[in-house]
Amino acid sequence: MSPFTPVPTESIAHAGEIALVRRLLVALGAAAPAAPEGPGDDCAVLAENPAPGRRLVTTDSVIWGRHFDASVSPEDAGRKLVNRNVSDIAAMGGDPTDAVLALLMGPDVSAAWLEKFMIGVGQACLSQGVKLAGGDLAKMPAGTFAASLSLTGFAEKPMLRTGGRAGDFVYVTGSLGGSILGKHFAFTPRVPEGRFFAAHPAVRAGMDLTDGLGKDLPVLLPPRTAALVDTAALPLSADCLAVATKSGLTAVHHALNDGEDYELLLIVDPAGADGMESDFAKRFPEVRLTRVGRIVPAATGLDQGALYDETGEPLAERGFDHFATDSTGN
Amino acid sequence: MSPFTPVPTESIAHAGEIALVRRLLVALGAAAPAAPEGPGDDCAVLAENPAPGRRLVTTDSVIWGRHFDASVSPEDAGRKLVNRNVSDIAAMGGDPTDAVLALLMGPDVSAAWLEKFMIGVGQACLSQGVKLAGGDLAKMPAGTFAASLSLTGFAEKPMLRTGGRAGDFVYVTGSLGGSILGKHFAFTPRVPEGRFFAAHPAVRAGMDLTDGLGKDLPVLLPPRTAALVDTAALPLSADCLAVATKSGLTAVHHALNDGEDYELLLIVDPAGADGMESDFAKRFPEVRLTRVGRIVPAATGLDQGALYDETGEPLAERGFDHFATDSTGN
Repeated sequence: MSPFTPVPTESIAHAGEIALVRRLLVALGAAAPAAPEGPGDDCAVLAENPAPGRRLVTTDSVIWGRHFDASVSPEDAGRKLVNRNVSDIAAMGGDPTDAVLALLMGPDVSAAWLEKFMIGVGQACLSQGVKLAGGDLAKMPAGTFAASLSLTGFAEKPMLRTGGRAGDFVYVTGSLGGSILGKHFAFTPRVPEGRFFAAHPAVRAGMDLTDGLGKDLPVLLPPRTAALVDTAALPLSADCLAVATKSGLTAVHHALNDGEDYELLLIVDPAGADGMESDFAKRFPEVRLTRVGRIVPAATGLDQGALYDETGEPLAERGFDHFATDSTGN
Repeated sequence: MSPFTPVPTESIAHAGEIALVRRLLVALGAAAPAAPEGPGDDCAVLAENPAPGRRLVTTDSVIWGRHFDASVSPEDAGRKLVNRNVSDIAAMGGDPTDAVLALLMGPDVSAAWLEKFMIGVGQACLSQGVKLAGGDLAKMPAGTFAASLSLTGFAEKPMLRTGGRAGDFVYVTGSLGGSILGKHFAFTPRVPEGRFFAAHPAVRAGMDLTDGLGKDLPVLLPPRTAALVDTAALPLSADCLAVATKSGLTAVHHALNDGEDYELLLIVDPAGADGMESDFAKRFPEVRLTRVGRIVPAATGLDQGALYDETGEPLAERGFDHFATDSTGN
């Protein structure tokens, strides 16, 4: 379903700003509290600290033609906007609390399409405990649609990307690759798992997998280290295998490079790794957790910041560069 | 200066994401702290409460072709993005503390232009005490550029839009109209003034003037009231008079409808108004504060939510509708 309408009377330009905002607030339902806690004043007014801990902030966008197309329902696009932000809060071990939404839209965006998008935003907010505290509408050229969400959360002891050491083990939750077949719109952010990892003494660092293990794991490597990836152990999703069958590339290639897994990537102290695994299995019996490699000192044939397979061959494939002209997008 | 370059090697697509982010962080300078307080992790990690009071959040955008064009320097566009958000915090009587920035850009955006834009963002952040805690880059169609900022602040006793009563006086800071000639890029958000009004017992409600007094004042009117505007008292800026000379419309028309004044609009208890005026004059001797009208009960010939001049003639001009197809933009 395209966001745009050729019928002027169905467009947001025709709806008028005040009536449109009213309609969008109805679509959001209970996700948008009344002012001043919600939309309607110059700012939203929130409790200082609705959850214990340090305050976390993140922002992420969805763009028509980039993150979704006409094959995607507006509700799914709206849910994705919320969930990809929530995944960033999950990656710090936090609880998401409240968000503001910037809509940047051509005048030819369909009011009915936008209403459905907001229904998806509202549903995801409600299911993640997020209040939509405020927003802004701004006009862009015809034929364009973008939405940016900024999300706040709180974490008692945030899990950072820094903290890994040579010798540490690398873990991932769930399975990797092939998210293009559906998971990139249908994932559930790993909020409770993130809280578990942030609180566990054996977990030294972590992040969420958005650009693919091949690009994201190097981010967690401390200086003068590389990583050995046990490619045989990579938890390949069924969709990863399906994509590989069609692409002619290996499933391992897809698991390393597909992006948008929205799983958690963890760096774990080897001394506590077995205990962490069993603690995790007790708490999350249905969630896969796989040791996929380890951090090693950089050395001859092991370049700093690079990934290698178990035989020492470089895993040359790189993750997703958001601005590269030759990128295939995600 | 246009954000776009016809020379591929000068574009952000050519720069590569990691190098580009590094360059933008250099441009931001001290405005962007190191991770985890600043950019570099999944979320920024902030103090729960860097200033006393309730937490305020707001979001606002600047869009190429909408809020600025090639006649505007990239530094001014970046400063405007920050300052229009800070004005929303000022309108609640708050202190701005930290922000996240979403950049939505065509691959043909010039890296040098973007660097200058970020220098402007950084300068405005530093001058307003705002830390740029994080951000996101996302790719849009060629020829487009948008930036959304989400800003957090804190206020001990936020000034809301609600609270006005029939009989209350209406005040504005500074002068109105003609901001298109320069003020809409060169304004200083009224942060200390906002704090003064939020703390003053005679001030019942307030907001910042972004869409023009004619559209903004009705927002502050309680149900079953209208407002009488003393059009002879309106503080007309020199630029308002200059614009009126060219447009052939009255200066009052421009003062009511131009938008982007970024002044504060206040609703004040008449019993405390004189005291508030003298308190304000002591604290801000160089800032104009003008009583421009009063709230009256709706009645025959005085429609609820509408504005009238001192003779009871309706001030039919309306402020700025962001999506109206016939709008001239601001």
